[in-house]
Amino acid sequence: MSATAEQQIEGLFSMPLDEAMRTQRAIRRLKDDPVDDAIVLQLIELALRAPTGSNAQNWEFLVVRDRAVKERLGALNRQAWNLYGGIGRWLNRNEPKMLRLMDAVQWQADHFAEVPVVIVACLRGPRLPFPPVMSSSYYGSIYPSVQNLLLAARSAGLGAALITLPLWSTFLARRALGLPWSVTPCAVVPIGWPRGRYGPTTRRPVGEVVHLDRYGNRPFRDANGR
Amino acid sequence: MSATAEQQIEGLFSMPLDEAMRTQRAIRRLKDDPVDDAIVLQLIELALRAPTGSNAQNWEFLVVRDRAVKERLGALNRQAWNLYGGIGRWLNRNEPKMLRLMDAVQWQADHFAEVPVVIVACLRGPRLPFPPVMSSSYYGSIYPSVQNLLLAARSAGLGAALITLPLWSTFLARRALGLPWSVTPCAVVPIGWPRGRYGPTTRRPVGEVVHLDRYGNRPFRDANGR
Repeated sequence: MSATAEQQIEGLFSMPLDEAMRTQRAIRRLKDDPVDDAIVLQLIELALRAPTGSNAQNWEFLVVRDRAVKERLGALNRQAWNLYGGIGRWLNRNEPKMLRLMDAVQWQADHFAEVPVVIVACLRGPRLPFPPVMSSSYYGSIYPSVQNLLLAARSAGLGAALITLPLWSTFLARRALGLPWSVTPCAVVPIGWPRGRYGPTTRRPVGEVVHLDRYGNRPFRDANGR
Repeated sequence: MSATAEQQIEGLFSMPLDEAMRTQRAIRRLKDDPVDDAIVLQLIELALRAPTGSNAQNWEFLVVRDRAVKERLGALNRQAWNLYGGIGRWLNRNEPKMLRLMDAVQWQADHFAEVPVVIVACLRGPRLPFPPVMSSSYYGSIYPSVQNLLLAARSAGLGAALITLPLWSTFLARRALGLPWSVTPCAVVPIGWPRGRYGPTTRRPVGEVVHLDRYGNRPFRDANGR
């Protein structure tokens, strides 16, 4: 790649931090237009700047472009979605916002194999199920990097979303990706140029989720009780 | 707060995304100088922009400033560190870099109650231990927000680090924080103005951690096999 092309790619990731965070959102409807390796590698290079427990850097990233592998992951995604989405639609039958979200998940399920790049973030090493903090430490070594990946995609104008449904069976997901037993697939991020647009998201007000010193003590709630 | 003060605080979080990521590192040696509520609330407000599974936003953030509560968390941290750190020092006795990291962790353990603000990120709702993907989805709803918090702290020039040792017993951590059983403490981030400096980190080369289509296929490794 020429020095100029490299600079152009570099510039893709220099959005102001707060703007990237405020306009990040899951984008599931993606074009089939190709996404260059150089951009994908930069996304992952930035993902690798995130912390890991004891700085172990025990991560591996699968970049899936091969249609046959995407179809296998897509089939796993569809199996989980057929069950989970059915329940979800029924539970949220009176919530138009959730139903719109589910339409986007459905679109993604129907077009999984056409997504240009699917990234699977994995961890090497065993996950001890007990005490709970061991699980937290374990996933605390991969999700910070996944969030870097999502923010970097946002900055570059790429659509991306964090999903785990294709991993409902780690046995089958390992088989689809040729992963050894020592490597656990944790999260999946389909990436492509967006059909939709990025924009602000709505969130619970900060004063409602912040507790000072003890749970339940919420001095930053506003006069409306939020 | 005046409009000007608000603008000054806003500007703290607008570092270019890639610069914030490339210079993020765990900073454990912190000054006792106070950190304003306005900044802490902005850190958490940006943390809340991260995704959660099914957009549940089932997070709660404990902001601990009370010395007595910090001492209880500090005691829990010390208990875990006395065990874990002893083993770690022995395992890494020939690795100066890891020993330096452990010196910083030791400093943090010795000064835990003097840290100006300790943030504990929590999740509401049950964590199903099986299948493994349920655990991944669960923690995938809190660590993206923790990473936003760490990046925002970096942008503002605050020192911060992601730790889980004070949570080795969720029973005792819940008691220290007055958390109900339905809320699980997941990660702890002590925050303050740094004694040390931010700077670039070293990481495994991207070509070594990226596998194309199947595990083990690493076409982006350079000529040195990295």
